[in-house]
Amino acid sequence: MCGIVGIVDAGGVSFPLYYALYALQHRGQESAGMSTFDHRPYVHKGKGLVAEVFDESILQELKGTVGIGHVRYPTTGANLPENIQPFNFVFRDQTISLAHNGNLVNTDALRAQYERDGQIFCTSTDSEVIATIIAHEIRTSGSVEDAVATAMRLLRGSYSIVLMLDETLYAFRDPLGIKPLCLGKTKDGHIVASESVAIDALNGTFLRDVRPGELVTITETGVRSTQIAVSDRRAHCMFEYVYFARADSVIDGTLVYDVRRKIGEDLARGGPADADIVAPVPDSGTAYAIGYSTESGTPYLEGLMKNRYMGRTFIMPNQQMRENAVRIKLNPIRKHVEGKSVVLIDDSVVRGTTSRRLIDIVRDAGAKEVHLRVGSPPIVAPCYLGVDFPTRTELIAHKRSTEEVRKQIHADSLYHVPLCKMVDAIGIDIGDLCTACLTGEYPVAVAGEECACRKVEFVNGSVQSHLETE
Amino acid sequence: MCGIVGIVDAGGVSFPLYYALYALQHRGQESAGMSTFDHRPYVHKGKGLVAEVFDESILQELKGTVGIGHVRYPTTGANLPENIQPFNFVFRDQTISLAHNGNLVNTDALRAQYERDGQIFCTSTDSEVIATIIAHEIRTSGSVEDAVATAMRLLRGSYSIVLMLDETLYAFRDPLGIKPLCLGKTKDGHIVASESVAIDALNGTFLRDVRPGELVTITETGVRSTQIAVSDRRAHCMFEYVYFARADSVIDGTLVYDVRRKIGEDLARGGPADADIVAPVPDSGTAYAIGYSTESGTPYLEGLMKNRYMGRTFIMPNQQMRENAVRIKLNPIRKHVEGKSVVLIDDSVVRGTTSRRLIDIVRDAGAKEVHLRVGSPPIVAPCYLGVDFPTRTELIAHKRSTEEVRKQIHADSLYHVPLCKMVDAIGIDIGDLCTACLTGEYPVAVAGEECACRKVEFVNGSVQSHLETE
Amino acid sequence: MCGIVGIVDAGGVSFPLYYALYALQHRGQESAGMSTFDHRPYVHKGKGLVAEVFDESILQELKGTVGIGHVRYPTTGANLPENIQPFNFVFRDQTISLAHNGNLVNTDALRAQYERDGQIFCTSTDSEVIATIIAHEIRTSGSVEDAVATAMRLLRGSYSIVLMLDETLYAFRDPLGIKPLCLGKTKDGHIVASESVAIDALNGTFLRDVRPGELVTITETGVRSTQIAVSDRRAHCMFEYVYFARADSVIDGTLVYDVRRKIGEDLARGGPADADIVAPVPDSGTAYAIGYSTESGTPYLEGLMKNRYMGRTFIMPNQQMRENAVRIKLNPIRKHVEGKSVVLIDDSVVRGTTSRRLIDIVRDAGAKEVHLRVGSPPIVAPCYLGVDFPTRTELIAHKRSTEEVRKQIHADSLYHVPLCKMVDAIGIDIGDLCTACLTGEYPVAVAGEECACRKVEFVNGSVQSHLETE
Amino acid sequence: MCGIVGIVDAGGVSFPLYYALYALQHRGQESAGMSTFDHRPYVHKGKGLVAEVFDESILQELKGTVGIGHVRYPTTGANLPENIQPFNFVFRDQTISLAHNGNLVNTDALRAQYERDGQIFCTSTDSEVIATIIAHEIRTSGSVEDAVATAMRLLRGSYSIVLMLDETLYAFRDPLGIKPLCLGKTKDGHIVASESVAIDALNGTFLRDVRPGELVTITETGVRSTQIAVSDRRAHCMFEYVYFARADSVIDGTLVYDVRRKIGEDLARGGPADADIVAPVPDSGTAYAIGYSTESGTPYLEGLMKNRYMGRTFIMPNQQMRENAVRIKLNPIRKHVEGKSVVLIDDSVVRGTTSRRLIDIVRDAGAKEVHLRVGSPPIVAPCYLGVDFPTRTELIAHKRSTEEVRKQIHADSLYHVPLCKMVDAIGIDIGDLCTACLTGEYPVAVAGEECACRKVEFVNGSVQSHLETE
Repeated sequence: MCGIVGIVDAGGVSFPLYYALYALQHRGQESAGMSTFDHRPYVHKGKGLVAEVFDESILQELKGTVGIGHVRYPTTGANLPENIQPFNFVFRDQTISLAHNGNLVNTDALRAQYERDGQIFCTSTDSEVIATIIAHEIRTSGSVEDAVATAMRLLRGSYSIVLMLDETLYAFRDPLGIKPLCLGKTKDGHIVASESVAIDALNGTFLRDVRPGELVTITETGVRSTQIAVSDRRAHCMFEYVYFARADSVIDGTLVYDVRRKIGEDLARGGPADADIVAPVPDSGTAYAIGYSTESGTPYLEGLMKNRYMGRTFIMPNQQMRENAVRIKLNPIRKHVEGKSVVLIDDSVVRGTTSRRLIDIVRDAGAKEVHLRVGSPPIVAPCYLGVDFPTRTELIAHKRSTEEVRKQIHADSLYHVPLCKMVDAIGIDIGDLCTACLTGEYPVAVAGEECACRKVEFVNGSVQSHLETE
Repeated sequence: MCGIVGIVDAGGVSFPLYYALYALQHRGQESAGMSTFDHRPYVHKGKGLVAEVFDESILQELKGTVGIGHVRYPTTGANLPENIQPFNFVFRDQTISLAHNGNLVNTDALRAQYERDGQIFCTSTDSEVIATIIAHEIRTSGSVEDAVATAMRLLRGSYSIVLMLDETLYAFRDPLGIKPLCLGKTKDGHIVASESVAIDALNGTFLRDVRPGELVTITETGVRSTQIAVSDRRAHCMFEYVYFARADSVIDGTLVYDVRRKIGEDLARGGPADADIVAPVPDSGTAYAIGYSTESGTPYLEGLMKNRYMGRTFIMPNQQMRENAVRIKLNPIRKHVEGKSVVLIDDSVVRGTTSRRLIDIVRDAGAKEVHLRVGSPPIVAPCYLGVDFPTRTELIAHKRSTEEVRKQIHADSLYHVPLCKMVDAIGIDIGDLCTACLTGEYPVAVAGEECACRKVEFVNGSVQSHLETE
Repeated sequence: MCGIVGIVDAGGVSFPLYYALYALQHRGQESAGMSTFDHRPYVHKGKGLVAEVFDESILQELKGTVGIGHVRYPTTGANLPENIQPFNFVFRDQTISLAHNGNLVNTDALRAQYERDGQIFCTSTDSEVIATIIAHEIRTSGSVEDAVATAMRLLRGSYSIVLMLDETLYAFRDPLGIKPLCLGKTKDGHIVASESVAIDALNGTFLRDVRPGELVTITETGVRSTQIAVSDRRAHCMFEYVYFARADSVIDGTLVYDVRRKIGEDLARGGPADADIVAPVPDSGTAYAIGYSTESGTPYLEGLMKNRYMGRTFIMPNQQMRENAVRIKLNPIRKHVEGKSVVLIDDSVVRGTTSRRLIDIVRDAGAKEVHLRVGSPPIVAPCYLGVDFPTRTELIAHKRSTEEVRKQIHADSLYHVPLCKMVDAIGIDIGDLCTACLTGEYPVAVAGEECACRKVEFVNGSVQSHLETE
Repeated sequence: MCGIVGIVDAGGVSFPLYYALYALQHRGQESAGMSTFDHRPYVHKGKGLVAEVFDESILQELKGTVGIGHVRYPTTGANLPENIQPFNFVFRDQTISLAHNGNLVNTDALRAQYERDGQIFCTSTDSEVIATIIAHEIRTSGSVEDAVATAMRLLRGSYSIVLMLDETLYAFRDPLGIKPLCLGKTKDGHIVASESVAIDALNGTFLRDVRPGELVTITETGVRSTQIAVSDRRAHCMFEYVYFARADSVIDGTLVYDVRRKIGEDLARGGPADADIVAPVPDSGTAYAIGYSTESGTPYLEGLMKNRYMGRTFIMPNQQMRENAVRIKLNPIRKHVEGKSVVLIDDSVVRGTTSRRLIDIVRDAGAKEVHLRVGSPPIVAPCYLGVDFPTRTELIAHKRSTEEVRKQIHADSLYHVPLCKMVDAIGIDIGDLCTACLTGEYPVAVAGEECACRKVEFVNGSVQSHLETE
């Protein structure tokens, strides 16, 4: 998981990129980076939060009216400085800067193919493979549209991409629309970003989502749209709605908060409990709990208080401290739960360890009963498309019944929203969602996995291109 | 405003102090510091958050089974490194380390008196004056009890203090109990801290509040209590309940969250509105809004989403950006407020500028009406006892009617909880609260201000001292 | 100018690399980096001095018994983080790490050729071009020997290179031997480094120089030598002897200090002066001045004292301060020069500005006469092979007589060592030296310049390879 | 050992202080600090080199036309942030900032006396005691002159002090003149500093040394001198000439370089050796070796080359590396010493461990014989007045004959300059020097030591004060 943003604005882009990355910080806290272009590329990137990587003097040096930015989610084993995005490549006398949200499933095959042709790579990332394909095609055809079309033919997986080729900004989204990407209007230009909150941060206007398979080209004169590919069915990641995206984001037409609130209502209907209060696991459980409370009439009351200052650098020198860390992060409000029957609401259960600890904490604080309600169906299969889930065997719901899971996490009762209800709440046809982690059926071919591959048609024989006016 | 903590624990104190300071971080983000003692003092302090000031190797160097810590609130004009607490003093061959939460009103007179006697000071703080008095008295009488008694006779204002004299930890609270201080049991020792959440962070047990005018002496053998002074009436700061303290803290017997929720109910009864939703200003408005919703039946729904990553270092190079900063910090959820009549709940209105901006933001996002409900009465007088309020003329409620304020902040209606209702919610007799900022009547003599001074009797002719057993 | 080092040692290489880079620090202060290999690559690099880039915990994470390191000289316009060496590339499942000292003159042509074949580049460096060529050839032939042979056929310019291909260390030097590279024995392995002082720093034993056109392959089992190419004449950079190398280094069989001392003697013979003292411009002038003093009998006495703490970060906010900086760096010893006739000895005169300032400083301190003696002939042509000289027109000796230069730098007399004498002192036939900056005649073809190209014969039809034993 | 500087200059002082501290960096590398005054005090200090503690933005914030600075020598056991100078004290509404070079021998007694009167101290330094005395007296008499007079009566030991009382700069030196302090003219004001090189760094003019027992008062209108005390004999620290001071400093009328060169000549006369070369231990041995070479005719040739980049942060993780560190710092030039008889010249021998290692290194590099010549007599007694010597038993010359020492350090011969010859070279009557470390006879009363106390007469009954004009 990562967050990406690209901005063209006559008033300069480094500060707007900074604010947009701030708004997308929840999508990645490991590293942050920015490239801008003003006759030559300007690049700054580093480990840590946006606030740690940039300061005012750095932003003032990042000149230009076009730029892209990236925040990176911590993933195991690849915390090399070379992997901090945006990536920058030199090609003839042009510079390509690229930032990527998503994950390819055929990286190795593509790398091998290009290595056979003599290409050597600077990083072990799929993003460099994407840049290589595009650069090769630009060389052959001279057209970015053709290059992106070829890339879309070759790439398998999820990819929302912002790409800066000298002073032109391009953005495109895989034909299945797995990862979000939206377009907005700023004061003197345009912005593309992973979530609409980045547009809000600039006091901009949300225009629309970038369409699956679409390439948008943004210059100072405006936005040009080219539909490169069309798939019969989409595969929007359901986990964006359930956990990743900020509640105040609107993704593919739907307010994330609404989805969660509706699921909460469903949890009340399908998983009623004779409880005294309903309490969220902060912060992601809040909207679910409000829905649950409204529907059930059970009073909404916070039972766990979150410490707002826990960061990456929190020190836990030993196991006992690590156990304790959950307590420091989430402190039970004893008086709210003591002697009570508590409905606790969380967005998802992955390994189950955090759920068990939280339930223990609430029970230790005096709760009579703890009923867990979960805003997503059991997660039973890994994600190859960008969510950093553990392997199948580490997933608590893998080959375990709900009752077995309930016992392991020490809950008095456990209820997951059913898949169909979650889909209803999202408001997108199930055939247009990626629910692979819940069903084991993937929207793209993954070796060794069951697939329900979407059919993609390439339409760039007759490119649909026009200059958008707002 | 600051947070203080003192720990005696046979298992070492630097890591427990670190976790306790984390839990008190909301009481001060400007600087943090820690002193421990193991045959000699160990000190580390610096600007920034607890997480920025300390790392594991630093904590490992802070040896000893006794120590104190401090987090400091940013106050104007005194951001000097010398002012970072704890303060350390050398006196004969003993070291005194002291951390202070509160504010004296007779610092200048006391400084002048001691300077007449030849004392020179290293800092401009009232805390150094306190240490000087105590050191002088220990020199004369050899008894810390006598020294604290003399200090309590001389000092006028608010002071909750932890003091380490070599390997003994002392803690005391002014006779009026203006600032909070509580006592807890840790695994192998004891803790005193500004708020009970610091005890929770160590998985400790809350024992009781330190009594106004009480001195507790903590060593590895246990806790000794000495009542130094008794006042006829207390003066607990009401603003701790309304804004400062964490909602999950229990102060002087009362859960802060409960106070806020009850005030919220009162706001619903006294300030009803024909509204579609009630939305908090996050995070401090949440408990109020839940109470309001419960009492009124108006649905609780978040209308403003807080960016969790805004820190001290957020860059705002110009006025436009500063205006924008509120937007980046609090993003309106358009769909929740569009076309709606919204009750917005905040804890207090000080200058009124933030209230006006938030109301504008909600209205710009499409709200039909915005009704502001406030969890505290109008603030009309400055605080000399530890809250960093602006001067009288900067307070929007100073010499302005509620109607005038309403217009200035662009609200459709404005309602403050009445003083008596707030006091009922706190559950402490009004005579035992400090409500000076609401009434202009101070519990201690302040030059040029109206005072209702508490009468303090010193009982150390017959010291009440005993070894506590738990 | 840069410094490179490669080590294979069974006892671990990160600390030895650190000490070796320390010894080579004079060859580059802008950035430093290190790659090691232990089943996977470990990389750390950053801006600043070796001491600033590395600390103990970083070195402990750089695992493995093979590794390479680099220090980089500040050159204008390319201070991008991407340009910090060593460079790392991924090729099939192998990692290539490469560090380079030297400069190619046909980079653009080679880049263009590879870009035509579809390669895209991550940096704008000639080093990446070198890695690309080698990777391509390894792909085709599977042999590093063949790959290096092809590289030597294609590359035009100076290049001393250490290259790590997984756990094997390779080192090679251009067929003309322009830049130095030597081989040594460490406790449990071998080292190749730009200068012998890096071997000394590990208390190792100097074995020999790497031969021009030779490839050495170092593993834990020993050193294998393959002569790839042989040139009729070499082109050792004379500026290494005159200025770059440390005086205690032995390069291509000659102690640098000796060269400078002998030149100093020649300066005394050819440029006698009726002077009271001979004083070096510290530190590079010292050996010259000692030679001058010995030969002439003029007493050696320091007239300028160097501040040992001047670093990259010295602050000079304005022009006046910049003028002053020379004074802070080099303070005249008034009593040594007052009323005296002073022979000042420097290694070279490039732009002439520093010479003029120093002469002014010595004269302001009371010197009656200041005679400048210079350890190298006038520099009249740019260097394309690794020395960061300015353009022709900025060279003070370009189209100016010695008398004209003397006037401009305010010297009472000026004498350069004649080319033939410098060559004698170096002890290498002039035909085996690169003296292009003194004569304008280059040892490799450079567009628009007069060349006396060396003839290179490739001998890898019959590779001379053997396992060295020590 | 420390370095101090005070500047009054209408053009601002933070940058001049920075350059002056740079020039004094050799007197202390542990920490650096600066105070300036412009209606209120501005302070910045930190651990590390001047270049590490300050940057341009910090210097720009240090406003004012008066200021003082300090660099601190690393001394054992007191590396607390509180001990970084200048110290700042608040006294009534005035601020005192003070920086101190030297060491008191009666600190404990003075502390005890002031503690009896109720003073508590913030640090464990003698500097705070000095400030306390001065503040007390200013309170009583209102006159800084009287305060300094009282201080001089009370203080026993060495002290050169710069003191800023609001916008007035004071500087004084103990009546024995143990530590150096000199006065210079800057462009628009005046400077006092530990050594004349700080004046040179500002392109200022050396005026004169501050006289022992003199107080100088510097304002924008000029310099006022008051002779507070006069001693019958002075006690200038001989170690300043031998080791501490920069060779280009002029102290109490004598150029340090000259002293060392003359001693070198004496070493040649008194300790001749049938040697091939004379080589200094860089850098402090250089001037001695030049003198030795001139007098003896033995060629001066560097045998050990110093690595210019060794800093405080050099990493030595284990004993072997620590042994090796000397090698990395000082590399032998094999060709210069191989088969040769070498005279090695160092300034002093303290513990003897470094001498032994260097002699071993030179011998390992092939020297036939190594003769050590030392620029100071054997050090047999500790220094209580500011030099951080080890205890008596750690001094190699304590109770050991020269022959015994020679054997321990592996020298073929060992010769120290005799005391009388060293004194002649310094050119100051032995009765006016402190040679306690060589003789065990101290110029001030030290408990348990033999003393030849100077007689001090206080002349401030008839203060000699006048405005200096230049």
